[in-house]
Amino acid sequence: MDLKAELQQCLRKDQVTDNETVRERHSRDESYHTARLPDVVVFPESREDVVRVMRFAHRHGISVVPFGVGSSLEGHVIPLKGGITLDFERMNRILEIRPDDFQVRVEPGVTRSQLNRELKKYGLFYPVDPGADATVGGMAATNASGTTSVRYGVTRDQVLELEVVLADGKVIRPGGSAVKSSSGYHLPGLFVGSEGTLGIFTEIRLKVHGIPEEVLAARASFPGIAPAVRAARAIQSAGIPVARMELVDARAIRQVNRHFQTHYPEQATLFLEFHGNEAGLQRDASFAEELSSDEGCDDFLFETGSNARARLWEARHHLVYAFLHGIPGKKQMVTDVCVPLSALSDSLEHACRLIEASHLTGAVFGHIGDGNYHALLMIDPQDRADMEEAARINAALVDHALDHGGTCTGEHGVGSGKIRYQRREHEEALDVMRGIKQLLDPKGILNPGKIFGEE
Amino acid sequence: MDLKAELQQCLRKDQVTDNETVRERHSRDESYHTARLPDVVVFPESREDVVRVMRFAHRHGISVVPFGVGSSLEGHVIPLKGGITLDFERMNRILEIRPDDFQVRVEPGVTRSQLNRELKKYGLFYPVDPGADATVGGMAATNASGTTSVRYGVTRDQVLELEVVLADGKVIRPGGSAVKSSSGYHLPGLFVGSEGTLGIFTEIRLKVHGIPEEVLAARASFPGIAPAVRAARAIQSAGIPVARMELVDARAIRQVNRHFQTHYPEQATLFLEFHGNEAGLQRDASFAEELSSDEGCDDFLFETGSNARARLWEARHHLVYAFLHGIPGKKQMVTDVCVPLSALSDSLEHACRLIEASHLTGAVFGHIGDGNYHALLMIDPQDRADMEEAARINAALVDHALDHGGTCTGEHGVGSGKIRYQRREHEEALDVMRGIKQLLDPKGILNPGKIFGEE
Repeated sequence: MDLKAELQQCLRKDQVTDNETVRERHSRDESYHTARLPDVVVFPESREDVVRVMRFAHRHGISVVPFGVGSSLEGHVIPLKGGITLDFERMNRILEIRPDDFQVRVEPGVTRSQLNRELKKYGLFYPVDPGADATVGGMAATNASGTTSVRYGVTRDQVLELEVVLADGKVIRPGGSAVKSSSGYHLPGLFVGSEGTLGIFTEIRLKVHGIPEEVLAARASFPGIAPAVRAARAIQSAGIPVARMELVDARAIRQVNRHFQTHYPEQATLFLEFHGNEAGLQRDASFAEELSSDEGCDDFLFETGSNARARLWEARHHLVYAFLHGIPGKKQMVTDVCVPLSALSDSLEHACRLIEASHLTGAVFGHIGDGNYHALLMIDPQDRADMEEAARINAALVDHALDHGGTCTGEHGVGSGKIRYQRREHEEALDVMRGIKQLLDPKGILNPGKIFGEE
Repeated sequence: MDLKAELQQCLRKDQVTDNETVRERHSRDESYHTARLPDVVVFPESREDVVRVMRFAHRHGISVVPFGVGSSLEGHVIPLKGGITLDFERMNRILEIRPDDFQVRVEPGVTRSQLNRELKKYGLFYPVDPGADATVGGMAATNASGTTSVRYGVTRDQVLELEVVLADGKVIRPGGSAVKSSSGYHLPGLFVGSEGTLGIFTEIRLKVHGIPEEVLAARASFPGIAPAVRAARAIQSAGIPVARMELVDARAIRQVNRHFQTHYPEQATLFLEFHGNEAGLQRDASFAEELSSDEGCDDFLFETGSNARARLWEARHHLVYAFLHGIPGKKQMVTDVCVPLSALSDSLEHACRLIEASHLTGAVFGHIGDGNYHALLMIDPQDRADMEEAARINAALVDHALDHGGTCTGEHGVGSGKIRYQRREHEEALDVMRGIKQLLDPKGILNPGKIFGEE
């Protein structure tokens, strides 16, 4: 069968390509996972286009992989069995902004920065911030989160309604525009985080939030990871409504200093942000300073102006850059686990020891208000020793997390990189997940080879 | 088959009864729905007991209905096909309190007040407050919410992990003790709100919260529902972190005044609560007062002491009592819809007009920060005219909600009372829900006749 010609009959000619460069761009994500070319790349422009493609793919048993900007980190968008990649760059309309309802309805190809640019006109913002300028569709597929989730929640918490094209081309719209509901099974929560394996999103209704009256940023260094984590915990326990709470280890600060010729104290450092009104924020900051000082911090700095805030957080923002550009020829591998808060200090120190003992350059940082942290490891993907060492550290971090009641991925998702941990983490519940996959995609055409492996 | 004798072989004798009084107590909930006796009532004491009962029931195709305290409002616990009612009163242990992780693990029979009594010792509380002293299992089964959900979210937002006994007796533990995860499909969110139709909960891990440093309560009356709703919206839009936001209509205040000989202004009234630190709260309250005064409120009162707070909220707390005891011989029927915030004012006024035009006594109140409201209708269940009129008003409220993008139930659940609206609300998504029900309960023994009807 001439896949391209057949699909060009379903859609328009210019919506389907097998151009080598385009396929190449859709063969990989930002991870170290091995690339694989799709057979064709399709650019749908409407739900109906997606329905046509799915009906065709279902009839012929052809794999379909949805694609946003390719910023996934566990190989999610790599078409392991070739087939069709659906690139949503042309479905990037903001369909409806309802300021009175604090919600917005968008197509999946809308990016985070595009959405926030538009929302700003209404005094609103979409809080989930995974770092990358990902699409809303991609963030919903992986249940992305990030620095602000300690305050505003993860993607799943924001999704009110989805339009989903199922494997056979049927369309459902689980959820609604009410803020809450106890009507029927909660399908939006099931589809969010399903990584393209249960259906293809064609619309997403999201909660949005009012831009806070005041924002206060703070930075504080500590004599070690344990006191930094204790200070963070004390701030949360005191009920101070922190909006971001990032930890960066001494190793990362050293790399930033080296690369940018800065002079930050080379210590475990907390980067904090508070959202609220002026009176409350001043009080919050003073209280946070007091709690930090109890843990040996003597340089708690805070700022409210937007430039001053950016300067204060500079080391956090430039962290990955300092490694990528400071160590030419190497690429980054970013691990991702999440542990109960009580296990966090131990887990972070364990991660630091692993890097210390390794030949790889790296650092540890994380969204520690949620117990979610990453090790950044600099590797040459062609160098077998590098790759083996990175894989060993990654596995040791996941094992440690699972041993302490944590999860193998806090925010990046399973993709193909975390399949091997699914049975151990979910035990018998994995069979229920497989049952749901089989129910909704009996032919196994939706992003095959992700989340579930051969057992 | 002698069901009682067979089950007494599976468990201990004193765990199984067909005593008429006990069966009678398990034949109804707090709703107007017709009672039906279970054949036997079983009191499990452990997960293993539940596994034994489910294996037995599965083998013989016998219906099983889980039961907490029977405070459901749409007939959820009524055993429509008889069979076994599982009463969780003996599974009421608090298994683990982890203050450092802001989480607790409990058996399903633990009640809300029991949990909060215990948590208080650690400076913690469980925020979901549906009014009734329901069990955690019951609240998880219906995705209960209530007055505090505007700030802390609904039950689904609190459930980190479940232990679930499936229809065939298999046990799964979806979720975990990390605050967030992107690992596999989100099954806890699917089981929460499934009303006993997908599995039986035997353990629940919940997020808990630090008791706020300061609590401030406020009361404000307005010249009508529309200005009260506008004031509420202005307070939310200003980013003031309100913890409770209740509206009570003039009719309800009048009934409170009549029954308790009080003199509250007989106007649409907002009851507010703010959680935070002292400096922030004073500022929040002043700002809320200013916004309320823009909408014609000239009696914004606020208090921080716990007795003074309770006095300020008295009319809200005694509302249902004033109707139940002020109108002897009648029972309450409580409707429950949730609409997008932009439709709330219209919906509330529509509800008031329906009551105004009706022969029934009633009132309207709601958790208006979420767009969720109730009509309280006083009925004599033996009086056909009362019942028909209440059903007509209920149907009109649901129709109005669905016409405006809302849901047929904001927090009470579907039970048997809202089945008729499922197809209209969920359209094709209902087929996916049915597929999941069929997958997990192929014999249809789990709380049959709930959520799904004959079509």
